[in-house]
Amino acid sequence: MLTNLVAAEFTPKADIDKRIAGLKAGMEAEGIAFAVILQNADFFYFSGTMQKGVMIVPLEGEPLLFIEKSVDRARIESPFNLIPIKKDKEIRNILAEKGALKGKGGMELDVIPVAVFERYKGLLGVESFTDISPIIKELRIVKSPFEIDQVKRSGEIVSRVFEKARHVISEGVREIDIDADLVAEGRRYGHHGFLRMRGLNQEMMNLYVTTGVSATIHSAGDVPISGVGVSAAIPQGSSIKTVERGVPVNVDYGGGYNGYITDETRPFVAGELREEFRRPYEVAREIVEEAAQFGKEGVNATELFDKAYTRAKNAGLEEGFMGHGAGKVGFIGHGLGLEINELPVITPRHKRVLKEGMVFAFEPKFILPGKGAIGIEVDFIVRKDRFERVIDFPIDIVYV
Amino acid sequence: MLTNLVAAEFTPKADIDKRIAGLKAGMEAEGIAFAVILQNADFFYFSGTMQKGVMIVPLEGEPLLFIEKSVDRARIESPFNLIPIKKDKEIRNILAEKGALKGKGGMELDVIPVAVFERYKGLLGVESFTDISPIIKELRIVKSPFEIDQVKRSGEIVSRVFEKARHVISEGVREIDIDADLVAEGRRYGHHGFLRMRGLNQEMMNLYVTTGVSATIHSAGDVPISGVGVSAAIPQGSSIKTVERGVPVNVDYGGGYNGYITDETRPFVAGELREEFRRPYEVAREIVEEAAQFGKEGVNATELFDKAYTRAKNAGLEEGFMGHGAGKVGFIGHGLGLEINELPVITPRHKRVLKEGMVFAFEPKFILPGKGAIGIEVDFIVRKDRFERVIDFPIDIVYV
Repeated sequence: MLTNLVAAEFTPKADIDKRIAGLKAGMEAEGIAFAVILQNADFFYFSGTMQKGVMIVPLEGEPLLFIEKSVDRARIESPFNLIPIKKDKEIRNILAEKGALKGKGGMELDVIPVAVFERYKGLLGVESFTDISPIIKELRIVKSPFEIDQVKRSGEIVSRVFEKARHVISEGVREIDIDADLVAEGRRYGHHGFLRMRGLNQEMMNLYVTTGVSATIHSAGDVPISGVGVSAAIPQGSSIKTVERGVPVNVDYGGGYNGYITDETRPFVAGELREEFRRPYEVAREIVEEAAQFGKEGVNATELFDKAYTRAKNAGLEEGFMGHGAGKVGFIGHGLGLEINELPVITPRHKRVLKEGMVFAFEPKFILPGKGAIGIEVDFIVRKDRFERVIDFPIDIVYV
Repeated sequence: MLTNLVAAEFTPKADIDKRIAGLKAGMEAEGIAFAVILQNADFFYFSGTMQKGVMIVPLEGEPLLFIEKSVDRARIESPFNLIPIKKDKEIRNILAEKGALKGKGGMELDVIPVAVFERYKGLLGVESFTDISPIIKELRIVKSPFEIDQVKRSGEIVSRVFEKARHVISEGVREIDIDADLVAEGRRYGHHGFLRMRGLNQEMMNLYVTTGVSATIHSAGDVPISGVGVSAAIPQGSSIKTVERGVPVNVDYGGGYNGYITDETRPFVAGELREEFRRPYEVAREIVEEAAQFGKEGVNATELFDKAYTRAKNAGLEEGFMGHGAGKVGFIGHGLGLEINELPVITPRHKRVLKEGMVFAFEPKFILPGKGAIGIEVDFIVRKDRFERVIDFPIDIVYV
């Protein structure tokens, strides 16, 4: 029944095997004897399923996939011979029998709550754990051909949404109404539902429609433009602000297919673009085009940022580049995958040599305090000899 | 600018003062000298803002609200005189000066990741923390008149969505297309964007449209019906299953206004309801009507469950009540507020005397393996002399 209903492909066994091998290599280098995988995105990455359970990956031998519910569904989705359990307490004896709990353990300490951690320490009878998330993040940074295929399908949803936006945006319409129509369009084309962002309090919406002043208000989040939302309780996203003639409407949409996230932004304009936004748009465009031209495997992420920053500075647009005042962020791009805040981060703060198969969003944006914002965001796949665009939807301003 | 854009009311100072007093009373009873509030929903509850920062509530003296960004927005939203900071490291000296770090600390250990906890221990120079979440959850369980008003506005969005569903559901339409149209409708009426669910891996969608077999497949989550979704990576929510004549379409929608969540379900049917679903629907209805009749302050949550269970059992429908087989859940209702899994839980496992101002979803549902599911979910506000329904949208089957 399930296989008839769920259209997306399951993760190939060859991919999962490679991921486990990569995890073990990382564990070996850090002296970690076994890893406990609990967090949704990591659990899916290593097991192929997101049913409720826990995965133990010992350095020696096969991973042990314990599933509480739904066992039936997990059997279909995961290539592993899973071990059904009623309660997670049962795993200790099984692991002890297999001698899997000797040595130092690894857990995802960046996301596992203290209470869950304490419970697992007691449950496993192990006191010492190292944070295994850095290893997992490094592993997830390079995408396989299967993953790239999912990313491209995710991107197709983005293209559909931008196409629809032409017909939805017009003068006087509220951001939130544009949002409603576009999120619905993405869902009709198979958007998997929501976007994951790793870490405490990291909340992400599928879409941010921002125009004029609402695009300029500082955000709680580490993003250049988040919108103001409709409440102090969810202080981000589209608002009741209406579209004005000549003021850019930034449509920042996150595609989602089979777990994989894409994230692109285009400016839409009703009528003619006002003078003050023209140069910022041109510079954003030049930054994207320059990156597309020199980008390839071996380039350092810091170079990407520096070149962009230099262009912004030379154009006299440094002040509003990637935010203004206290709202300025220190990056121009972020990795994409099962979570929207993966590696690599494109920032001057961390050196990172790009490698084939990395996927990231690149988003030069300019904020003009009190007036509005304009920018472009495209997703790149790093190839040996170039940056490949995930979608070919043009980066031109879309006049509506 | 902001106050023109964000229509929802800010939390009244009187509410915040009462919440802080309640927190302090709980801290005193547990011997906690100061509380560190970091998690989004709690932070908003106690400060009125969800901008980035940390709130320290000492048992003696005023709460200290430190805001990193956006300071401007937090100033508008919170009644406190906030303390702007550049980095959270700065707070230690300020707290030390005020003598606020003496004694045992409290943190939200059910949600704070280990890495964040360790960082804060170092940052504050405090080793010993108690989990303060049980105190917070008990405090949040009773809603103030202001909160009830937000809940009712949230419910208005639910009514709009059910109204729209009449016109969207018909034979042959896919769950996901119904989902797209209805989520859009909710957003147009001011839905704040997404629903929060407390805890590791707790992910919630705004809407679950399930019909026929997709309503019967066991879920990873602790819910009777979650749908199968469109991918193993988000294994819940609406799917590509289409509506069949006579088979119930369960529309389970979560309203969201100013942070406050509502959660109701109605069955929609194209044509005449098939025979096998009639008795389950009638019993679900009787369960809701009975609860509405005897429910009031002082009733125990276990009684609510027991009465419902007895009705299901007497009707010979025990097997599919609240799930079937491994998919069965142990509750018939859950508290609502800033998170969808608040207290009280309506279950036979925990005694809980209901008090005026508690708000909960009550959801008798029956699953018929291989065939489909039917049920009703309504939200109740506990009053001295009755259960008040949050919305008056009828609980009848909606024929389309």
